[in-house]
Amino acid sequence: MSFTKARTMPGVMELLPLDQIALQNLLDTVRRNFERFGFLPIETPAIEFSNVLLTKSGGETERQVYFVQSTGSLKQGEVPELALRFDLTVPLARYVAEHEAQLTFPFRRYQMQRVYRGESAQRGRFREFYQCDIDVIGKDALSVRFDAEIPAVIHSIFSELKIGAFTIQLNNRKLLRGFFEQQGIADNQQQMLILREVDKLDKRGPGRVRETLTSADFGLSAEAVDAILAFVGTRSSGHQDALAKLAAIAADNESLRVGVAELREVLELVRAFGVPETNYALNFSIARGLDYYTGTVYETTLDAHPEIGSICSGGRYEDLASHYTRSKLPGVGISIGATRLFWQLQQAGLARRGQSHVQVLVAQMDAAELPRALGLATQLRMAGINTEVQLESKKLARQFQYADRAGIRFVVMQGADELANGTVAVKDLRRGEQFAVAEAELIKTLRVEIEQSRVMGDAALPAAAAVVAP
Amino acid sequence: MSFTKARTMPGVMELLPLDQIALQNLLDTVRRNFERFGFLPIETPAIEFSNVLLTKSGGETERQVYFVQSTGSLKQGEVPELALRFDLTVPLARYVAEHEAQLTFPFRRYQMQRVYRGESAQRGRFREFYQCDIDVIGKDALSVRFDAEIPAVIHSIFSELKIGAFTIQLNNRKLLRGFFEQQGIADNQQQMLILREVDKLDKRGPGRVRETLTSADFGLSAEAVDAILAFVGTRSSGHQDALAKLAAIAADNESLRVGVAELREVLELVRAFGVPETNYALNFSIARGLDYYTGTVYETTLDAHPEIGSICSGGRYEDLASHYTRSKLPGVGISIGATRLFWQLQQAGLARRGQSHVQVLVAQMDAAELPRALGLATQLRMAGINTEVQLESKKLARQFQYADRAGIRFVVMQGADELANGTVAVKDLRRGEQFAVAEAELIKTLRVEIEQSRVMGDAALPAAAAVVAP
Repeated sequence: MSFTKARTMPGVMELLPLDQIALQNLLDTVRRNFERFGFLPIETPAIEFSNVLLTKSGGETERQVYFVQSTGSLKQGEVPELALRFDLTVPLARYVAEHEAQLTFPFRRYQMQRVYRGESAQRGRFREFYQCDIDVIGKDALSVRFDAEIPAVIHSIFSELKIGAFTIQLNNRKLLRGFFEQQGIADNQQQMLILREVDKLDKRGPGRVRETLTSADFGLSAEAVDAILAFVGTRSSGHQDALAKLAAIAADNESLRVGVAELREVLELVRAFGVPETNYALNFSIARGLDYYTGTVYETTLDAHPEIGSICSGGRYEDLASHYTRSKLPGVGISIGATRLFWQLQQAGLARRGQSHVQVLVAQMDAAELPRALGLATQLRMAGINTEVQLESKKLARQFQYADRAGIRFVVMQGADELANGTVAVKDLRRGEQFAVAEAELIKTLRVEIEQSRVMGDAALPAAAAVVAP
Repeated sequence: MSFTKARTMPGVMELLPLDQIALQNLLDTVRRNFERFGFLPIETPAIEFSNVLLTKSGGETERQVYFVQSTGSLKQGEVPELALRFDLTVPLARYVAEHEAQLTFPFRRYQMQRVYRGESAQRGRFREFYQCDIDVIGKDALSVRFDAEIPAVIHSIFSELKIGAFTIQLNNRKLLRGFFEQQGIADNQQQMLILREVDKLDKRGPGRVRETLTSADFGLSAEAVDAILAFVGTRSSGHQDALAKLAAIAADNESLRVGVAELREVLELVRAFGVPETNYALNFSIARGLDYYTGTVYETTLDAHPEIGSICSGGRYEDLASHYTRSKLPGVGISIGATRLFWQLQQAGLARRGQSHVQVLVAQMDAAELPRALGLATQLRMAGINTEVQLESKKLARQFQYADRAGIRFVVMQGADELANGTVAVKDLRRGEQFAVAEAELIKTLRVEIEQSRVMGDAALPAAAAVVAP
């Protein structure tokens, strides 16, 4: 018989169980924090009508779309009318437009699903990856106060993930636009092209960027380029410094005035939300794409790992669903690319393999006593302890070996001696110890050990500061 | 501007947030029980190579496959080399074959992901749906004892879901084969065709089924048909009756002998696993498909809702991954089609809308005091209480209305009076009551209320028996 090679397509992440648990822990932490801040879950289908998905994009997005066809339509040579979602924003827009009458506004939704992009295969690029999004959608209007809530959620998530010190970088598109207008550059498209060049500062160095911006392509004066580089180089350190940097801006046009005012309100409320000032800063170089965002924009970086780039980004937009509905739906949101983040944490040595969910293996001492072992396991499970039973008859050493390999910490044994005196022997594979407890005390004892291990496990983690030490 | 109609493709389930929470609760319960029995999670990509997915199927499956193409390959008119998974079994086989060297056997995995089938659109048929699978995969061999563990997992899940009395129906393919051999029908294909006719008993009545089976197509004698109908009509009531029904079989061939012995061992161990005898029964009409299963087979039905059909099915197979590897990988597993189950429970009035995850709305009494409200919310969140803050200034009545519509139970208010005397006013929208507590007591008070509500919520559920009363 000939075999088909068992393989996945390139660009997908497939994990062994203990790594899957680690990813699941990351996702669970994100979800728990989304819920803590009052966001409600939705899920949308992976497959959507192509014309619904591709209303506004064209260009880059369309080139990366995966089209879907059933065998029937394939045979008939039809152009695919279905495609896989490439983000969660377009499906959100479609969802809100479709169900508008049944939703309560402001609509606070979270969504954690996989999205699909036909990227060229490349290390660290994924064709299927989890996005974890929150958005608050207003009807007609949405206070800028919601822009201040987003950093509080980001702070809550990344503090709990314990992956090191991080900074939520804040900027405002109105501020950027106002500044460029001040420099006599009113065209939005040209503003973005300039920002794109500025983005290359780290790679190309200031000399070459200056050269490009003063070249015929851009035609900027050396003074204008100096002003731009100075402005986008603005970074704040601490809350008062951020306010001072805003106060120092000569806001002589409307866009600049509104941008400064919005950023100031966001900063004040971010502090009121309890976010420590070490965790947020102004960064006037952040723009986040060409068309979509209109006010506050966010990026989040790990202080010790700038090479990872932003691990959580987003911003404020004017109108979510203008392609589907006449209703004006302004919103603010962020997205965490969890698959890429998990991969990056692994690469940076910040992701640990998960611990098995299975806490106990009930050993098989004597096949005739299997029903008793099953009864013991049922008791443990009813007490909330995840338990596997050794069902196949094997030497005890092989049972230990199996538990050890599978990452199961406790092996519970009840042989003839233990049965005679009403006890249970417990082998703790992590500590390499074995002890005996009265059968009636087994559950209590294991619970204490598991709880201690949970607390100790956290304590044994390198503290956040240690992780990020250079 | 012209609008694109916001709509999903037919055959997908998209839910409003509170229904999404109800589905999520169902999935979480399934997952918790899988973990309780020591199963470990894996996830596989939705997109696989077509030739990997379609090794063994052909026929029905292939006709329902969704093929996937990136824009690039679409333009070049290529035959799609990618497809969406249509179940979790083929991806499991591919996964185990691909990662065999890194897995610990018996490999106990659970997997809860969506699968895709190009079904013709029809009420209650889904093109995208959740499957929740567990399988135990052995290397070379796997004791029949594992077949007895599966009903224990099923029992644990459906007891916790509280959707009424249910029966796990057990049969064994070796038993069926042995019986047919006894009747002189040795051909596996013909056995299945006969079983397919027998399956129509309820719809067509015994007269017409008899007619078909004695017709030229099948050519069975009236005596043989009687024997078949009597045999497949076997149902046990209670553990002893099940054992008695097995003992009554004249097992005069090897297949029949082994089938009887396996079923007997499974029954004995299912009891030892603590499954009440009202929750399992022999049902000799269950066959589950043509080629795949080779030993124990399972179906699970709700006693008061036979029209729903099986809500959890599976069985024992000889060799999981023979298309990908020379290794012999016998296994046993089940699948729960969670999307369809949820839909059916909704149809049968057995699914309740979920309760919002959001427990508290901190009201905005005075915009100037917003930072204080944010601080209060942070305290609640740090105590594990999911909390939303009223960020936009609105009349209190409108804030209550919002909380009520959004399903948030408590509105927490701190106006000038409360601030003056260090208290907080709490409006309980479910009970329609308002009370005051000292600010220092707020968290404790809310925790007690939320915990009580959780327990009462369970108690307020129609008890399982009541739900299934005719």
